[in-house]
Amino acid sequence: MAAKNDQVLSGGSVGAVLAQRARFDVPLRLQSGAELPSFELAYETYGRLNPARSNAVLVCHALNASHHIAGHYADDPENVGWWDNMVGPGKPLDTERFFVVGVNNLGGCHGSTGPMSINPATGKPWGGDFPVVTVEDWVAAQARLADFLGVQRFAAVMGGSLGAMQALQWTISFPERVGHALVIAATPKLSAQNIAFNEVARQAITTDPDFHGGHYYEHGVVPRRGLRVARMIGHITYLSDDVMMEKFGRELRRGTPGFDFNIDFEIESYLRYQGDKFSTYFDANTYLRITKALDYFDPAAAHGGDLSMALAPARARFLVVSFTSDWRFTPARSREIVKALLDNRRDVSYLEIDAPHGHDAFLMDDARYFAAVRAWFGNMLLEGPEQ
Amino acid sequence: MAAKNDQVLSGGSVGAVLAQRARFDVPLRLQSGAELPSFELAYETYGRLNPARSNAVLVCHALNASHHIAGHYADDPENVGWWDNMVGPGKPLDTERFFVVGVNNLGGCHGSTGPMSINPATGKPWGGDFPVVTVEDWVAAQARLADFLGVQRFAAVMGGSLGAMQALQWTISFPERVGHALVIAATPKLSAQNIAFNEVARQAITTDPDFHGGHYYEHGVVPRRGLRVARMIGHITYLSDDVMMEKFGRELRRGTPGFDFNIDFEIESYLRYQGDKFSTYFDANTYLRITKALDYFDPAAAHGGDLSMALAPARARFLVVSFTSDWRFTPARSREIVKALLDNRRDVSYLEIDAPHGHDAFLMDDARYFAAVRAWFGNMLLEGPEQ
Repeated sequence: MAAKNDQVLSGGSVGAVLAQRARFDVPLRLQSGAELPSFELAYETYGRLNPARSNAVLVCHALNASHHIAGHYADDPENVGWWDNMVGPGKPLDTERFFVVGVNNLGGCHGSTGPMSINPATGKPWGGDFPVVTVEDWVAAQARLADFLGVQRFAAVMGGSLGAMQALQWTISFPERVGHALVIAATPKLSAQNIAFNEVARQAITTDPDFHGGHYYEHGVVPRRGLRVARMIGHITYLSDDVMMEKFGRELRRGTPGFDFNIDFEIESYLRYQGDKFSTYFDANTYLRITKALDYFDPAAAHGGDLSMALAPARARFLVVSFTSDWRFTPARSREIVKALLDNRRDVSYLEIDAPHGHDAFLMDDARYFAAVRAWFGNMLLEGPEQ
Repeated sequence: MAAKNDQVLSGGSVGAVLAQRARFDVPLRLQSGAELPSFELAYETYGRLNPARSNAVLVCHALNASHHIAGHYADDPENVGWWDNMVGPGKPLDTERFFVVGVNNLGGCHGSTGPMSINPATGKPWGGDFPVVTVEDWVAAQARLADFLGVQRFAAVMGGSLGAMQALQWTISFPERVGHALVIAATPKLSAQNIAFNEVARQAITTDPDFHGGHYYEHGVVPRRGLRVARMIGHITYLSDDVMMEKFGRELRRGTPGFDFNIDFEIESYLRYQGDKFSTYFDANTYLRITKALDYFDPAAAHGGDLSMALAPARARFLVVSFTSDWRFTPARSREIVKALLDNRRDVSYLEIDAPHGHDAFLMDDARYFAAVRAWFGNMLLEGPEQ
């Protein structure tokens, strides 16, 4: 199995990459009714767009990631892209064949226009006044980027978790612009429990005395305590109980119970570390907006709850992947998507991977999962000459 | 089924009850090594201790409950005991036959000695200096109360969740003093995920700027924001995803998305309400200590992880009950207890109730669950003449 693993997980790095920025001066009307007079999107590309412009793949990010999918920055070699195991020369999404596009979503905190940007109306950072954005808004903004890059139609749009929701939305919003959709660890809408976890995270942030209604930049502070707790909650939902038990168990860091409130168990150390790290680099206003985008996503809502009707416009070929131990978005949620696509006689492959890692499995090396993605891209027919 | 339900769930109220308090002046050595020179326990009793003193049942409480199990207070008729559906005349635990004892645990905030009590060494509230207490400590203190009440041996010790851990510990600490043990919605030890949820709750509290290292009483504040978030996290783990979806769904309170951070979904309203309510009456220092007691509970640890060895001293007859939808302490955790008891050839009945409510099911009216508890107590043979 080791040899097979090596083969499946082989491939190189795209190497040093450059983040770029595109500016859009045609106003963007958001789903909320608010209008952004102009905006910028941070993005990266790997590989080359072929002359037929038929080999572009858009990779959408989930909660805390960004446009930096693969490779590293020349001046920051440790900063490796978040899906570097998946994207690169010879990797499942092979940059020798495909032109891969990563984009930081609108409202983000990694370079695209968001709450930390200057609000042209006030000359100060938007802060709490930045509009609430939705998956539909993100896809609309990404379509502008596609135009800017000269991509009329993506060979594929791909994402995991919240990224998968964007891939799904692409097939609804722009059915003619998506050849294939890779929908990984997805759900067609959040459950009440999913929303509950998001809400507690938001409450931790908005009740932090340093939040100041989202205008904390002006006060020279950030709601770090709230963001830290929010991230800790998130991490619990990303892992399965089993893998958490296997990784951390009930190991006592000090050998015996401390009978105090310092760290006793390894899992406490892990959570505090993750919370601390996140709270130093992620923007709380962005976190709030991303969780709202998750909560609101529900393409079936406009069709009386009928997901099959919602997906009727889709024309793409689908690969839907779920993971058995994912209790955040269970395989049952993915099967709802598969069923709705089959109702529409769409071309859909469904893969349920027996993986222990929980929701985070979509980011992990797994021989069967990676082999399937590799094969799916490998079998993909592109329009026109490839080179 | 309605008729059967009525029958099973029938029974009256114990009526107006009085909380009492017992003082213990022999020092209590805690598991941490700390010593309480004296302490008080708040308790209530219902029914009458028979002349043979053989009909006493101790009911142990879980995280946020107290000694007030059944009935109401004459001056506060709305304040009904937390297990009033289970305990009363003609109810599953019938106070016409049994003498029922409820006790607020050491470190609590409902009348027993705890962080809000005066530290005799300083003349000020203990606050953050109150020792960390364990399930073993609680059981040791409860044994003092039993002595005080003239109860040498309980007919039964009973509890759900953390209360069930106390029932289990009684059978290990004082095997000759427990005739029967009712272990409901229990686990022999927390998983890493269980500890993780507790830790996030603790971090929310201890990083609240109003926490002041647990000495907030002196500052005239309480860490309400942290306690609120802690309670919200707890509530998510008490309910199943299914019942949450059924109860709250994705209903929008304002009919349409608000595109802001006010309440959109019903579940948000529920969580904020529960968090607000809890933060007005519960003590944060107590919450911290109760979660630590949960984390530390692991009777098998002293036996190299062998639960069968840990339960070898037990002599009680056991009724173990779990609920299919309880994802906090799953039925599998209860079956570990059952297996360890069977390894010791103990008398154990196991009931896995197909209930939708999640962990909270142990507090809910359920015809099969209540019928089983009723029958179990009904068949219980007491020593000596009953009257």
